[in-house]
Amino acid sequence: MTRTILESKSKTVVIGFDEPFCIIGERINPTGRKKLAAELQAGDFSTIRKDALEQAACGAMVLDINAGVVYNSNPNPNETEPPLMGRMVELVQGLVDIPLCIDSSVPGALEKGLKLAQGRPLLNSVTGEEDRLEAILPLARKYNVPVVAISNDDTGISEDPEVRFAVAKKIVERAADFGIPAHDIVVDPLVMPVGAMASAGRQVFTLVQKLREELGVNTTCGASNISFGMPNRQGINAAFLPMAIVAGMTSAIMNPVLPQQMEAVSAANVLMNHDPNGGRWITFARIQEAVQTGTPFPEAATAAQQASATGRGGRRGGRRRA
Amino acid sequence: MTRTILESKSKTVVIGFDEPFCIIGERINPTGRKKLAAELQAGDFSTIRKDALEQAACGAMVLDINAGVVYNSNPNPNETEPPLMGRMVELVQGLVDIPLCIDSSVPGALEKGLKLAQGRPLLNSVTGEEDRLEAILPLARKYNVPVVAISNDDTGISEDPEVRFAVAKKIVERAADFGIPAHDIVVDPLVMPVGAMASAGRQVFTLVQKLREELGVNTTCGASNISFGMPNRQGINAAFLPMAIVAGMTSAIMNPVLPQQMEAVSAANVLMNHDPNGGRWITFARIQEAVQTGTPFPEAATAAQQASATGRGGRRGGRRRA
Repeated sequence: MTRTILESKSKTVVIGFDEPFCIIGERINPTGRKKLAAELQAGDFSTIRKDALEQAACGAMVLDINAGVVYNSNPNPNETEPPLMGRMVELVQGLVDIPLCIDSSVPGALEKGLKLAQGRPLLNSVTGEEDRLEAILPLARKYNVPVVAISNDDTGISEDPEVRFAVAKKIVERAADFGIPAHDIVVDPLVMPVGAMASAGRQVFTLVQKLREELGVNTTCGASNISFGMPNRQGINAAFLPMAIVAGMTSAIMNPVLPQQMEAVSAANVLMNHDPNGGRWITFARIQEAVQTGTPFPEAATAAQQASATGRGGRRGGRRRA
Repeated sequence: MTRTILESKSKTVVIGFDEPFCIIGERINPTGRKKLAAELQAGDFSTIRKDALEQAACGAMVLDINAGVVYNSNPNPNETEPPLMGRMVELVQGLVDIPLCIDSSVPGALEKGLKLAQGRPLLNSVTGEEDRLEAILPLARKYNVPVVAISNDDTGISEDPEVRFAVAKKIVERAADFGIPAHDIVVDPLVMPVGAMASAGRQVFTLVQKLREELGVNTTCGASNISFGMPNRQGINAAFLPMAIVAGMTSAIMNPVLPQQMEAVSAANVLMNHDPNGGRWITFARIQEAVQTGTPFPEAATAAQQASATGRGGRRGGRRRA
């Protein structure tokens, strides 16, 4: 049974076919967030701090850390990203004890993150491009960490799912040459926007099943891509996630601060028999009641977490006292 | 390709693997609705009228008609149900031009409904019980209508999905003996509450796929059973429907007046590539905007329907003018 083991300082998260869906929080990423990029350039890490705490409270099991900011003062990411990645990793793991996903296109930033991360982070990402295979797989090997494998190569992103499968297969084989087992490869089959390619949903469902059955790998995706350009994106995402889960998807890089998506994943966990006795669903339903009366989701989730930790109405608290 | 054809006076609905999910409105049913039962006994059909119009406006493609009321004055359903079914069928098809699903455990009520229904209704239901097979299949044959086949038999409802598959197979075979083809059998694999049986969700997903691949039949279910006994039932249902759809489920008997479930089904249609150009999703998003500003869902849906019919902002209207 495929199990990808991630660790923080003291906690273990398993991505696997018989595990609850692994939610990787996507928020800590200045790409496309101009305000955050400006803050980071000014040395202000308050948003990072807030994003780390809120995502963890809302149910993120892993936090993606991306330092992809381009400073006006120095446009060379090979120089600017590694130190920023270092600061972000140290800051975040000082705040929350959950595994990290070290995310960059700059090998130096990846290595800086791997050096500083406690436990066993997820490396994000390698592709089927020759230079990426040669740069990233040795890093995964050296630090003994699992790696996200994105199904594009030197020819770009194919619209043909068979080609994307072949790229994933190539990465798994090359990783094996480096001594990295298939259970440490988490394939991202690439989710296209369904508004641009009407078959995008079915493609992903078929690909995920094939990746699981033929390569035995865990899978992930940038879940919100599916709804790009559509009205009511949350509605599309909230149906896509359960559909991907029943097809075999085992994790997603997504925004855990949006309650509709988290509800969909929590319900899918119940329906996949990955929430024994529905304990997590019951807790989530209580959080939602608070949200419906006007409490912001992160606040309601934090309150539920604290109640649980102190034993007030929480199952975990109850067990601790026993 | 399996296609189950239903018809009203002038409209055709196809249940099929390559069709939008078929939503069968469940509301016209006095079972468990004491107030409605009392109204019907008093000859008051105003709720039936409202339920027919609201369900059709909200997106029901077929309306289930169940006359299962027990009068205090006459406790024999063989005498009371047939005339009530007749009145309900005539009333509903006078109000809305969509196919009906004639639903009763009383053969006389089924035949009364079949006699009066215009077009080609769906017969609901036969089981694997000997007396039901002998009573219902000849009716389906005589009126040339498709029939819902529920996977229980004289031994009851099995918790073993293999047994439920075997019962479905037996019904399909017996129907063939009566000259009824597999594409006119819509199997209900029986959805258990996930709160009572943790494997209930996975059972259904596996069964639906097997029914489709091995028997080539369309499928349906009482969708809300899955969440019986759980908090936030709509949240469970809204994940269950897309998961069942990607597993191959082609219809459900459900409440179309609940917007969260309808959103889930509409999004799943987009993701299955059963909503070309996302036209229906865009219309649904507009209805939701109205709902979010406080308009009740049936009212917002009716307004959208009227706008569409008169060509104000509606795609269908636009095409008609062309």
